[in-house]
Amino acid sequence: MSYVRNAWYVAAWSEEIAPMTPFAITILDDPVTIYRGESGRLVALEDRCVHRLAPLSLGRCEGDRLRCMYHGMLYEPEGQVVEIPGQEQIPSRARVRSYPVVERHSWIWVWMGAADLADESLIPPAVGLDDPDFILGHGQLDYAAEARLINDNLLDFSHLTYVHAESFGAGPEFAATQAKITPLDRGIRYQRWIENSRGSSSRASPVPMDSYMCYDFLIPGVLLMTGGVFPLGTAKACDYGVPDLAEAISGVTFTSQAVTPLTEKTSRYFFSWGPRRGHGDEAFRDMLMGIAGKAFAEDKVMIEAQQIVIDRTLDPQIMPTAHDKGVTLFNRLVEKLAKAEQERIRVAA
Amino acid sequence: MSYVRNAWYVAAWSEEIAPMTPFAITILDDPVTIYRGESGRLVALEDRCVHRLAPLSLGRCEGDRLRCMYHGMLYEPEGQVVEIPGQEQIPSRARVRSYPVVERHSWIWVWMGAADLADESLIPPAVGLDDPDFILGHGQLDYAAEARLINDNLLDFSHLTYVHAESFGAGPEFAATQAKITPLDRGIRYQRWIENSRGSSSRASPVPMDSYMCYDFLIPGVLLMTGGVFPLGTAKACDYGVPDLAEAISGVTFTSQAVTPLTEKTSRYFFSWGPRRGHGDEAFRDMLMGIAGKAFAEDKVMIEAQQIVIDRTLDPQIMPTAHDKGVTLFNRLVEKLAKAEQERIRVAA
Amino acid sequence: MSYVRNAWYVAAWSEEIAPMTPFAITILDDPVTIYRGESGRLVALEDRCVHRLAPLSLGRCEGDRLRCMYHGMLYEPEGQVVEIPGQEQIPSRARVRSYPVVERHSWIWVWMGAADLADESLIPPAVGLDDPDFILGHGQLDYAAEARLINDNLLDFSHLTYVHAESFGAGPEFAATQAKITPLDRGIRYQRWIENSRGSSSRASPVPMDSYMCYDFLIPGVLLMTGGVFPLGTAKACDYGVPDLAEAISGVTFTSQAVTPLTEKTSRYFFSWGPRRGHGDEAFRDMLMGIAGKAFAEDKVMIEAQQIVIDRTLDPQIMPTAHDKGVTLFNRLVEKLAKAEQERIRVAA
Repeated sequence: MSYVRNAWYVAAWSEEIAPMTPFAITILDDPVTIYRGESGRLVALEDRCVHRLAPLSLGRCEGDRLRCMYHGMLYEPEGQVVEIPGQEQIPSRARVRSYPVVERHSWIWVWMGAADLADESLIPPAVGLDDPDFILGHGQLDYAAEARLINDNLLDFSHLTYVHAESFGAGPEFAATQAKITPLDRGIRYQRWIENSRGSSSRASPVPMDSYMCYDFLIPGVLLMTGGVFPLGTAKACDYGVPDLAEAISGVTFTSQAVTPLTEKTSRYFFSWGPRRGHGDEAFRDMLMGIAGKAFAEDKVMIEAQQIVIDRTLDPQIMPTAHDKGVTLFNRLVEKLAKAEQERIRVAA
Repeated sequence: MSYVRNAWYVAAWSEEIAPMTPFAITILDDPVTIYRGESGRLVALEDRCVHRLAPLSLGRCEGDRLRCMYHGMLYEPEGQVVEIPGQEQIPSRARVRSYPVVERHSWIWVWMGAADLADESLIPPAVGLDDPDFILGHGQLDYAAEARLINDNLLDFSHLTYVHAESFGAGPEFAATQAKITPLDRGIRYQRWIENSRGSSSRASPVPMDSYMCYDFLIPGVLLMTGGVFPLGTAKACDYGVPDLAEAISGVTFTSQAVTPLTEKTSRYFFSWGPRRGHGDEAFRDMLMGIAGKAFAEDKVMIEAQQIVIDRTLDPQIMPTAHDKGVTLFNRLVEKLAKAEQERIRVAA
Repeated sequence: MSYVRNAWYVAAWSEEIAPMTPFAITILDDPVTIYRGESGRLVALEDRCVHRLAPLSLGRCEGDRLRCMYHGMLYEPEGQVVEIPGQEQIPSRARVRSYPVVERHSWIWVWMGAADLADESLIPPAVGLDDPDFILGHGQLDYAAEARLINDNLLDFSHLTYVHAESFGAGPEFAATQAKITPLDRGIRYQRWIENSRGSSSRASPVPMDSYMCYDFLIPGVLLMTGGVFPLGTAKACDYGVPDLAEAISGVTFTSQAVTPLTEKTSRYFFSWGPRRGHGDEAFRDMLMGIAGKAFAEDKVMIEAQQIVIDRTLDPQIMPTAHDKGVTLFNRLVEKLAKAEQERIRVAA
């Protein structure tokens, strides 16, 4: 199973890219350096000097250019070398790859595939930390596991009942019931109503209520979810569809999450979470972030242990269950898109 | 060189397996989880869920069953899945391997081969920590080395003269003389009398005496040894055979040791040591354990260094010496048994 | 690209080889132990016992011999086993490789190739710490990088302008100008005058002056350099050749440096530096060592990062620049010598 390259991957939080300071990350095994030039222009270059393969991320920003600090090659934002100390002629092959890069929703998105296909409309509609309609906290975790295992985890919430019984306070409903699943162009939509429950630890209630969760899981690995608790009967009243958020008892929250494959067996996981404005305050956000910190550490323990078992298994085979419908649909979508990418490359060659 | 699988391997001390708490170990590269169910039943299962290969050792005991805490598959002690959350049908292939497991002599023994051949009479007659006839201390060490190298070490006590000159206070006799070696059905017996010596640091004596050591080294890698000091002349009087333990001057001791291959290049070493009751007290046992702690650390330094040299040698070849008779006999026995196992599997297939 | 084996490699500082105490090092992936016997004789043996491959460096010196402390094999300085405990006969194949070894210039040099070709006149003329004409400090660094990358670094000083702008206070001259390069039998000579400059941090001057550097870089990876500052006009006066050192304003210094490949991807870097006597005192030497400590750490950061990028690159290709003339010449020399060695071995076989 491979990954889609013609997609926007989250490389960093906006705040991680300081002015004139190269940042290093590996995405899909490609070393990438990202910097903001003097003009504020955001640049993402292959992090490998053409001369002797030193990382450009150890280099120095000069205007909007980046100088390798080993022997001084100077790079344009588009990747061409424009200066080779001690040499007049600059070979045309003296260039590194320049990646399309966009800053949006407080994230730095890098397009890892064919530059001519980079389409900003494919950036998932995450919510930025500065969005006035939300009060969000955020964090990130590095995994010693392949991204696919984290995607699989996020594509099947039945694990909440077991992995997160204490942190999220999830009851047996997640494992006992199926979410409504709708295929999207570049992902899967999950909708789930849990009726007549007192909610989980993050949204506990003294009276029974209806609890709503809806999320899109989008290529390459981005989860965008709205959740909230509503008066008993809301689920039935809206025919298990989308409720009027204004009718929520409390706690309509939104979370953006992104899984980025670094190398074949390592990944970075970015997340934000918090209430819609009017549905909670900073204290509520902080409580949610405390729960998230505990819960995401639980996932990490399980998934990294799973990776170790997989790695020591000769021919690892999974046995899908009824809850894996979404996992299977999403992975088929990834395979279809990855295959089409390969086909396009074959035809072009 | 391979290992015998149709054998009982020490997986843990009895005390390591707490009630209702899965324990994880890898034996011969197989991930295994061991637990005591509510009824007290001891269970050893393949530590790999059929669903997505998460380790069952992160699971939860429910009665005598074990639930995977990733997505909730519930396993019987025999390995079958009996519950898949959100799904009625349970495929017959939804089962993991269940290993024969026995608690005896304070050790948990797991049979790593064909279950139908598991024969409790093959469990080596170690001495448990609770045996009223002995006063035993115990410990364990993990090695970054293959089990075979530790076995080889224990099969040739000529190393005592060099590796343990200070800790055991072993003199030149171990390297200068040969033990009497007797092949057993599933191992080798070593007998050695050292005459007219003042003994080693663990059994020092003001007057010359005869020192006796006899041990069996048994498949898969278990050492069971009696040692003691006797009046000068005892060796000759018993024709270098088995002495009357009642005639010992002091310090008739017993040690049980077990070497368990975890992975191809890692091992766990379990040991107990102490006097027979009437031949020493708790203080004597503690003195022995202090010596053992020092000596076994000396072995670990040498064997892990040996492993590093072997690993960086293109075609590692050993050059056996006269002292290697027991090593050679035991390794031939292992190869013979391993080959027979392979043959049996071929015929069955 | 391979390394030359018929060459003297620096294995250690003289002071590292204490009397009767085996020292362990790996050179070109060969495990080697070095010791001084009772007579003071220096011995270098393959660090791998013929018996069970334990490292002899864990052994004990007995006279000028070395005893393996696993099972007691005793080795002559020439590598033959002369004692096998418990055994009369000693097979003729019971021998390890003995390496030609010489102590000179405060370094222990080991010849890694065919012993019959070992020629002490090929030892590079480094300056020892005890040379009365110099006041030298010294140090060493281990690299997680292949030796070739460190050699390449030392063969192109244009990196001083970028990597060491602060530590050495190197200006743009190193990248802007070419050194004069002269091929030697077993290396390359670099000469460089920087005219009308106030010098670098290690040789700052209130008035403009001419700065001189000349170094030989010799097989297998030894740098020997003289540097100093001279009155303005000296460069022109001596036609950019060798100045009269007596005319130096201050600070004529000498540095010996050696790069030793340990394994395929690790290396050890030895260095000394200081003024000629009469050109500076202990305080000047200590100032130089402080600068060197900072500068060599800068190299290490860059080169180890370069190694990581190379390792994750499928088919790593460099793109040489005008400054790489010396790098190219030296690496061609290495390839030529390595090829001749291989040819000699083929013919002999």
